[in-house]
Amino acid sequence: MVPRYARPAMTAIWEPEARYRIWFEIEAHATERLGQLGVVPESAAKALWDWWKTEPVIDVAAIDAIEAVTKHDVIAFLTWVAEQVGDEARFMHQGMTSSDVLDTTLAVQLARATDILLDDLDALLAAIERRAMEHKYTPTIGRSHGIHAEPTTFGLKMAQAYAEFARCRERLVSARAEIATCAVSGAVGTFANIDPSVEEYVAEKLGLTPEPVSTQVIPRDRHAMYFATLAVIASSIERLAVEVRHLQRTEVLEAEEYFSPGQKGSSAMPHKRNPVLTENLTGQARMIRAYALPALENVALWHERDISHSSVERFIGPDATITLDFSLARLTGVVDKLLVYPERMQKNLDRMGGLVHSQRVLLALTQAGVSREDAYRLVQRNAMKVWESDGTLSLLELLKSDPEVSAALSDKEIEERFDLDYHFKSVDRIFDRVFGKA
Amino acid sequence: MVPRYARPAMTAIWEPEARYRIWFEIEAHATERLGQLGVVPESAAKALWDWWKTEPVIDVAAIDAIEAVTKHDVIAFLTWVAEQVGDEARFMHQGMTSSDVLDTTLAVQLARATDILLDDLDALLAAIERRAMEHKYTPTIGRSHGIHAEPTTFGLKMAQAYAEFARCRERLVSARAEIATCAVSGAVGTFANIDPSVEEYVAEKLGLTPEPVSTQVIPRDRHAMYFATLAVIASSIERLAVEVRHLQRTEVLEAEEYFSPGQKGSSAMPHKRNPVLTENLTGQARMIRAYALPALENVALWHERDISHSSVERFIGPDATITLDFSLARLTGVVDKLLVYPERMQKNLDRMGGLVHSQRVLLALTQAGVSREDAYRLVQRNAMKVWESDGTLSLLELLKSDPEVSAALSDKEIEERFDLDYHFKSVDRIFDRVFGKA
Amino acid sequence: MVPRYARPAMTAIWEPEARYRIWFEIEAHATERLGQLGVVPESAAKALWDWWKTEPVIDVAAIDAIEAVTKHDVIAFLTWVAEQVGDEARFMHQGMTSSDVLDTTLAVQLARATDILLDDLDALLAAIERRAMEHKYTPTIGRSHGIHAEPTTFGLKMAQAYAEFARCRERLVSARAEIATCAVSGAVGTFANIDPSVEEYVAEKLGLTPEPVSTQVIPRDRHAMYFATLAVIASSIERLAVEVRHLQRTEVLEAEEYFSPGQKGSSAMPHKRNPVLTENLTGQARMIRAYALPALENVALWHERDISHSSVERFIGPDATITLDFSLARLTGVVDKLLVYPERMQKNLDRMGGLVHSQRVLLALTQAGVSREDAYRLVQRNAMKVWESDGTLSLLELLKSDPEVSAALSDKEIEERFDLDYHFKSVDRIFDRVFGKA
Amino acid sequence: MVPRYARPAMTAIWEPEARYRIWFEIEAHATERLGQLGVVPESAAKALWDWWKTEPVIDVAAIDAIEAVTKHDVIAFLTWVAEQVGDEARFMHQGMTSSDVLDTTLAVQLARATDILLDDLDALLAAIERRAMEHKYTPTIGRSHGIHAEPTTFGLKMAQAYAEFARCRERLVSARAEIATCAVSGAVGTFANIDPSVEEYVAEKLGLTPEPVSTQVIPRDRHAMYFATLAVIASSIERLAVEVRHLQRTEVLEAEEYFSPGQKGSSAMPHKRNPVLTENLTGQARMIRAYALPALENVALWHERDISHSSVERFIGPDATITLDFSLARLTGVVDKLLVYPERMQKNLDRMGGLVHSQRVLLALTQAGVSREDAYRLVQRNAMKVWESDGTLSLLELLKSDPEVSAALSDKEIEERFDLDYHFKSVDRIFDRVFGKA
Repeated sequence: MVPRYARPAMTAIWEPEARYRIWFEIEAHATERLGQLGVVPESAAKALWDWWKTEPVIDVAAIDAIEAVTKHDVIAFLTWVAEQVGDEARFMHQGMTSSDVLDTTLAVQLARATDILLDDLDALLAAIERRAMEHKYTPTIGRSHGIHAEPTTFGLKMAQAYAEFARCRERLVSARAEIATCAVSGAVGTFANIDPSVEEYVAEKLGLTPEPVSTQVIPRDRHAMYFATLAVIASSIERLAVEVRHLQRTEVLEAEEYFSPGQKGSSAMPHKRNPVLTENLTGQARMIRAYALPALENVALWHERDISHSSVERFIGPDATITLDFSLARLTGVVDKLLVYPERMQKNLDRMGGLVHSQRVLLALTQAGVSREDAYRLVQRNAMKVWESDGTLSLLELLKSDPEVSAALSDKEIEERFDLDYHFKSVDRIFDRVFGKA
Repeated sequence: MVPRYARPAMTAIWEPEARYRIWFEIEAHATERLGQLGVVPESAAKALWDWWKTEPVIDVAAIDAIEAVTKHDVIAFLTWVAEQVGDEARFMHQGMTSSDVLDTTLAVQLARATDILLDDLDALLAAIERRAMEHKYTPTIGRSHGIHAEPTTFGLKMAQAYAEFARCRERLVSARAEIATCAVSGAVGTFANIDPSVEEYVAEKLGLTPEPVSTQVIPRDRHAMYFATLAVIASSIERLAVEVRHLQRTEVLEAEEYFSPGQKGSSAMPHKRNPVLTENLTGQARMIRAYALPALENVALWHERDISHSSVERFIGPDATITLDFSLARLTGVVDKLLVYPERMQKNLDRMGGLVHSQRVLLALTQAGVSREDAYRLVQRNAMKVWESDGTLSLLELLKSDPEVSAALSDKEIEERFDLDYHFKSVDRIFDRVFGKA
Repeated sequence: MVPRYARPAMTAIWEPEARYRIWFEIEAHATERLGQLGVVPESAAKALWDWWKTEPVIDVAAIDAIEAVTKHDVIAFLTWVAEQVGDEARFMHQGMTSSDVLDTTLAVQLARATDILLDDLDALLAAIERRAMEHKYTPTIGRSHGIHAEPTTFGLKMAQAYAEFARCRERLVSARAEIATCAVSGAVGTFANIDPSVEEYVAEKLGLTPEPVSTQVIPRDRHAMYFATLAVIASSIERLAVEVRHLQRTEVLEAEEYFSPGQKGSSAMPHKRNPVLTENLTGQARMIRAYALPALENVALWHERDISHSSVERFIGPDATITLDFSLARLTGVVDKLLVYPERMQKNLDRMGGLVHSQRVLLALTQAGVSREDAYRLVQRNAMKVWESDGTLSLLELLKSDPEVSAALSDKEIEERFDLDYHFKSVDRIFDRVFGKA
Repeated sequence: MVPRYARPAMTAIWEPEARYRIWFEIEAHATERLGQLGVVPESAAKALWDWWKTEPVIDVAAIDAIEAVTKHDVIAFLTWVAEQVGDEARFMHQGMTSSDVLDTTLAVQLARATDILLDDLDALLAAIERRAMEHKYTPTIGRSHGIHAEPTTFGLKMAQAYAEFARCRERLVSARAEIATCAVSGAVGTFANIDPSVEEYVAEKLGLTPEPVSTQVIPRDRHAMYFATLAVIASSIERLAVEVRHLQRTEVLEAEEYFSPGQKGSSAMPHKRNPVLTENLTGQARMIRAYALPALENVALWHERDISHSSVERFIGPDATITLDFSLARLTGVVDKLLVYPERMQKNLDRMGGLVHSQRVLLALTQAGVSREDAYRLVQRNAMKVWESDGTLSLLELLKSDPEVSAALSDKEIEERFDLDYHFKSVDRIFDRVFGKA
């Protein structure tokens, strides 16, 4: 976790105190159910909850001090709680194992983190939709291979981003369901010393699903899928970030990250306005992707469990969610405040001397009876002249002067192929697909 | 692709001829719809399908020869088809772009590959379920950290694997939906020169969903999610493979890969029976995981598309699906024929001198009024003696001789805690969760 | 391995026949040494070499057929050789284990593959050096963040690439030394049944170093380092490929991949010239990077060895070296034939209205006694006007008209800061550093 | 960075204050050289160093406050220093660009971090060597595929680890040289506004090498190689950690991590002693490996630089070095205090009924004139009986009773093949190779 790439609400989920609070809730709910079952006195849970209602401060340092001796975190915590609550606390944790607490806690933390990420995605989607509507018909050149292809609109670029992040949202909902499970199943998951209804009770109280079969641990394929999903979302962030970086290039300059008055682009070159936010997002995406790898390696735990996943999750649990939260929020800001330059888009569109209309002429020629091979040859020989002139020659004029082209198409028929609006007739239909009909 | 790790049905999907057949179908369906719309003569599609009905051989070498000149694969293919079909073929590909064909073809290939993988998973699930039922109550020691913990059953190990691969199957169904989309949207996805209904028509004919908004290409976040899902499945394969490898260790030997009569384990040590199939699976899992990475890097294509994803997909499209198909089939064979040794499991269970029952005694002591701390100390001091004796001392006997323990529990109460069946009372309930009630 | 991304010399190294030839050489050299030691008759090696001198065809199919029965590749090979050579062959493989053959063979294959890669790098370095010298003083704009910064030369871009690939070459030499080791140490590496001098003898004959301590296998940290090095080289290829892709963007167009007369850029847009070779290289780099991962996971083999590395190496041994060989050769072709457009470079340099000289003015102001803060403010306010004019205003003229600037610098002093050659005075020194003095 | 996996000396390198101190040194050294060249007054550097000699506290919060306005870290720092030092400070940073400071600082930090890592490796090597000498001739079974193979010694296991980490040390020395370079070359690396001798001066003062050709940034292939090297070292750590985990398995128990008196292995099972340190190391290795990936993706910066690498390095710079430092120290502790159980090793060796000697018998039979195929068959049929008896039958006795074997070998000849010392005759020679002669 890098502080400058972290936001407080997400960071709070991963702080020791938050973790201990979830530990307590799991233990107290379990004790409550054990009381109902008659395994422990009902007074035990009552004592725990009574203490809890006093809103006690969790003394992280004191717990750490006990752990330094016992070298076992859950025992340290239970000992500390017992010191606060008194004798009744000895009934806590009956028939449970540490992993019941640790794994269920991780589930709660990841579920809460995901709720924030879902909100982040909603905000991002809203920003993208607003810019899509605003620029629904703003003409801009579509590029393949970085080369001018055919016209599109800036709104369509945004619509594509919207559809992509809507998919990311759906994936994240699935990923949340993957990890939001509860295990209170004992030492090797057999419920030998604890009734399965305790698991079901705790699960319900915490908004989780009982894990159908655990083996001391919740199986790590769930977490692998979760972090892999974050990696895909990060890659989509990178795609939009790279788009902005490209649009901001000096020679393109069709859009720019918002540049605040006091900001300095460079210590040396005062004229510079650099796409630093989206460059940062590119780097952060690399990190979030990388965090999926150890999560995948964590799946193959030995037998009923080993603890190699634990150190990994101490890193990637916070690091992946905190960084993704930050990235989504930053991207939302970039989209929201992006400076869009329609005049420059038009200028870039025009600079190719009409080459972007070449395919329409090609089609017109074949429809007029010219073979595809010949049509291609005719268009290409004129297109190449325009290309080599760096946009100073006009494809329209060259085609009208080409006797072989004229033999197939009248000047008017050629001119009709150079109409920009022709390309935008399906924009409405695509928007309907992406945003739904109004 | 490594031939020895490939099976013919999956490999066939990725051969040039199969690809060209899909290309033809896309072009012919599109031409058919264009005929209905009056954009091209209806006779064009008829000519194409009439030729197709003759079951023509696809001359891959001839198409390659044309590509060597044009350096463009789709044009080479169209040229070759035109040579076969004649004049009517010039109406093919009207308003389309190469990516319409290539991306939709990849969707068909991945969807078909996934159907095989789903069948593979079904076969694997069936094999696991059979072994789970067979060994539902076969006692075996549960291990955490590689250390004996508490008893479980071999059936529960299988149930856990079943639940994990059932999740993998669900994920794969989702992943299939991710990539089974069709794009016939033209040069930059604006449908400038082709009606959106062509895309919808082709999609329906090929069992795909129309891509809501494409940009020449189908967005690569879909493929990233697909290959990430394969990586998770591979990791689950690794988990079960590692379990078998552990069980086959000389000192453990609770199960063994089937060993055929003619097989030689080692050129030097004729007694050796090595878990080579599951070791192989471990390595294959590493490969399938690795293939997810470039798929994630493919997402951030430049603007409306660049072609950097293409070379990646030429590798990972076949390599990931072929290797996963092989791995799943191999794992199914391993599970199906796995030699399971219940006697050895029991022997291992017994070798710890009853230490595995220590937690039950701990609980009994606390329930008898001993503080948790004291109970822990009492059990541990006896457990340590057993542990240091390498299983020659008996925990039961030591506890009965410990005056502090005897003060709290009668001999009979202690003996009750050493009953193996105690641990299996919830097996039925877990099986219900995993396999459903009969 | 994708055939279209493979070259024959490298592919040949990985074919079964080549592998079997190395197997034979290892066995024959070992038998020879064992003869010298008196462990086996000296006639044994003679019989083997005599047969070898007849240049026998290796019957791969026959060996495969034996392996289908024995399920052991080395035994199958030894059996086949024995069938050819006769009775004396039974002395082969005395005291050796299969891994002695397999691992040493992999070492030979990787060493040979590396020799090709080193040649590839030499060719690439030569091409880059030629273009560097050709364009040593061709002015072009240097860009940071994709934004115009200060002038540089195209030769300096090439010099940077040269230095980077020279480092790659050094790393590859180290990587070759890592993997060029020989193990003939028996079942668990103790030389129990074979004298260490056999290993030393075979190593010398094959141009390898004896592995100081092997454990049936050559330790896989060596291979991890090797494939990690290939991954770094691939990343450097990607860097230069991305540079070319950027330079070929329509709006930049300072360089282009060579475009052959018959080539068609797009089935739809005949004017298009796409940087497809470098886009391909970008994708291939992603693959080569990915291959390093499983090599890293291969290191932690169990005890004296498990065989999980083997299936991985069947993939990445050929795939990584073949793809890197192809990539290096392709990149050499791209550099060699790259169309470079100095006029366009100058045009792009000029389009910013002189903004690239802003830092020099900033320095001149501070040297004239203006505080750094004030100098920055003065330059920035004029620079911003030029920037917002899209290059139609001239920074030089604006600065001369700014009274605060004029108060510190005369017109002549300002004009001196707009001299392009000023930026190139250290080019020679940098070239000396990179290419050495002539 | 996870605090519990961090040690103070390494963490200190990455704290803001440490970074700012290096920034200052770079600026001051550069100003000094600029003074020698007459570009700035010599009094400037003197003023800086005079202030430095007062051992000023670096006010990180104040610098952060300035950065919040300027949104530029280096400008913020220079502003703050100027506030402290006064008017002479305006000569700092003349002709330099922020990256000159940032990249050179990263070089210093990584070089210092590497020095700690090299010390860590030295300590680890010393611990391994000590244990190797101690157990040079402690017999233990060598295992391939997890299956008993032939005898080896625990010292040889340690010797292998020593050789592996000695290689890691060499690689780290190379990796340090990779990143220990200095760039003070200005906005795009042309030295336009600064003399190359400043770079050389600063480099010498800081113990770095001048970067032959930089492009505002030091090229990131260097850092990719560095972090890839750390990933290889992490994988070697994982190998030794996995070895310990295997040895500590209940059924094997040939070694154990040191277990301190107050430590509790499990909240539920008081008898458990878990290899948690090495399991932790396994997880940490996964993280350090993962950090190499974004470093590889950082190489392909756009043109003369983009800043996408920067956010990545804010993570992996500290996280990879801090975690590796912790891992190496922890592994050193594990090795140093490892509880080794030679009796148990012998017991495990004996449990296979002499099967580990099968290869020697095989050799004896072939040397006695039996064909390899027959010898293999004879040994295997007796070996299989022993194997199936779970070690209760004795291979020696069975062989002596097998008439076909007796026909070729006398009882005494057979017995000679069951001598353990036979396997250790080359231990000394291997130790010489690894540790050098005494």
